[in-house]
Amino acid sequence: MKRVAVIGGGVAGMQTALRLAEQGIEPVIIEKEAELGGKLRGWHVLFPSFTPASEILTELRRRVAERGIEVLTQTEAAGFTREGVRLTDGRTIACDSVVLCSGFTLFDASIKEEYGYGIYDNVFTTVDIERMLNEGRVAKADGSRPKRIAFLHCVGSRDEKVCQQHCSKVCCITGVKQAMEMKQLFPDADVFNFYMDIRMFGPGYEEMYREAQQKYNIHFIRGRISEASPTIDGRVQIKAEDTLTGRPLRMSVDMLILIVGMRANDDNAVLAEGAGLHRAPSGFMAPRDMFLGNVKSNVEGIFYAGTVTAPKNIGESLNEATAAADAAARYLGA
Amino acid sequence: MKRVAVIGGGVAGMQTALRLAEQGIEPVIIEKEAELGGKLRGWHVLFPSFTPASEILTELRRRVAERGIEVLTQTEAAGFTREGVRLTDGRTIACDSVVLCSGFTLFDASIKEEYGYGIYDNVFTTVDIERMLNEGRVAKADGSRPKRIAFLHCVGSRDEKVCQQHCSKVCCITGVKQAMEMKQLFPDADVFNFYMDIRMFGPGYEEMYREAQQKYNIHFIRGRISEASPTIDGRVQIKAEDTLTGRPLRMSVDMLILIVGMRANDDNAVLAEGAGLHRAPSGFMAPRDMFLGNVKSNVEGIFYAGTVTAPKNIGESLNEATAAADAAARYLGA
Repeated sequence: MKRVAVIGGGVAGMQTALRLAEQGIEPVIIEKEAELGGKLRGWHVLFPSFTPASEILTELRRRVAERGIEVLTQTEAAGFTREGVRLTDGRTIACDSVVLCSGFTLFDASIKEEYGYGIYDNVFTTVDIERMLNEGRVAKADGSRPKRIAFLHCVGSRDEKVCQQHCSKVCCITGVKQAMEMKQLFPDADVFNFYMDIRMFGPGYEEMYREAQQKYNIHFIRGRISEASPTIDGRVQIKAEDTLTGRPLRMSVDMLILIVGMRANDDNAVLAEGAGLHRAPSGFMAPRDMFLGNVKSNVEGIFYAGTVTAPKNIGESLNEATAAADAAARYLGA
Repeated sequence: MKRVAVIGGGVAGMQTALRLAEQGIEPVIIEKEAELGGKLRGWHVLFPSFTPASEILTELRRRVAERGIEVLTQTEAAGFTREGVRLTDGRTIACDSVVLCSGFTLFDASIKEEYGYGIYDNVFTTVDIERMLNEGRVAKADGSRPKRIAFLHCVGSRDEKVCQQHCSKVCCITGVKQAMEMKQLFPDADVFNFYMDIRMFGPGYEEMYREAQQKYNIHFIRGRISEASPTIDGRVQIKAEDTLTGRPLRMSVDMLILIVGMRANDDNAVLAEGAGLHRAPSGFMAPRDMFLGNVKSNVEGIFYAGTVTAPKNIGESLNEATAAADAAARYLGA
């Protein structure tokens, strides 16, 4: 039986392995964390349907277990070719093909020092908010209810200064989703979204953006926050320019939430060099083309699925995983 | 052998049929036009790679022919269930499952009368430009070279007045692509893009947007054109508001190009009702969910691929087609 190494056990990796197994190929998932699920493990509900992330995770894990797919957790790839994956512990996993599903890295908000993440109380990221939502307790650092909340889009995206020129695709809608959740929790709070362009490109996204304005009365301000500083009473003072009115703007908020983007994994460079793979200028892996070869790498027998090639939403990652598993199966003559 | 009716022979339909055939299922493509290819037939090159559309079309058609897939052209579905497709000519095509790949309809720019499409010379749509590029001759109505060109985004998208609230997803990048092509053809021309939000969400899109500004010196103005009128010398006068400077703006251009959006097919309503399918408020078909069920309909045995559920780019449609074919194959126990 042909064997395919699936590097990464997030949504894309699990779906890839499932589709391989269903086609009579033996997949082995190599996952560096202690459990399957990838970044989705840290998420509460998904846009635009407010579907619990756990529903999708539980179902995928159930199917992986039911199929008896081999899963190596706490196992990390140090390099690979289509014939085998070299692990950081020195072992080698032999295979006939590889699907790289190693995902993305969240932008470290503390790099944008001007926003004070990790320094000032009450500066959070979208990841922190999702965790608080999961824990059922969203609050200011002192435990009290926020009355004024600001979201800042494009933290670590479309930003030449931190060498992240690409758009992270899913942050705009995540910001709108969390803004709505904040209004559900704190109906009396004023919620602001500071943005450059509101990118509501998917089915139901634009409709959700309208609902955020019309039903939830969330304020959208076209402008980037330039600076945040703490006030004596534990709030955060922000400076921005409202680019539509052309006026500088200064306000104090109880919570500043930084909408962090997706960036390429640092180890993409080493993995790419070892396997002879091309990368895009953004650092993400470069598929053979955007069309008929969008799950193929430039090397025969090595395939991609999910956010290892670019920011993507869950549905897109799942479809790519199916396409990548099929491409690998065809390559192996299955 | 199990048989699947694939309604629509565009990119999604061809890829669906191919993946079904590769899994030992007999597909039959039902295409209302005289040849396969769908909307891609009218396109010249694709964003962001400037890949000729004909490359993808030729390759898909070649594979469909090589596999000997049954194709019924000039054949239209009047209704269907998973057991059969009723054609407008009265025949019925029996099958065991259906994948609906009937795509989208381009917004009719003449509905937005204020822009004068079909009335004034030198008001075009992105479709007209693509056709001119294909014919190798882009010019004003009188055959002369344009010196000033304006693109207007969101024509028939995000517009409550024409009942099209959704974002059409691919128009922003199409507008940027065509603006760059215009500068390549007419380096001395001034090219303007009037937009609400520039939605550059895909890999390479944001980079292309930067290139459009930095290398091609294309001007982006945040504002919607409110009105176009003809001038005595055959040009088009446009009125807009530059929402960033807050100033009204009036200029004459040699060509006004309306970036038309994607809307749901009118016959979706009848097809949905006949088969008991759900539709989204936008009129597109509603998949079971956005995640694990994104190629399934609410009816067992009926599947979706491509733009019949929402605006999508070519890569997304191809991946969805693969996922839909696999879902149909699993449903049939293949």
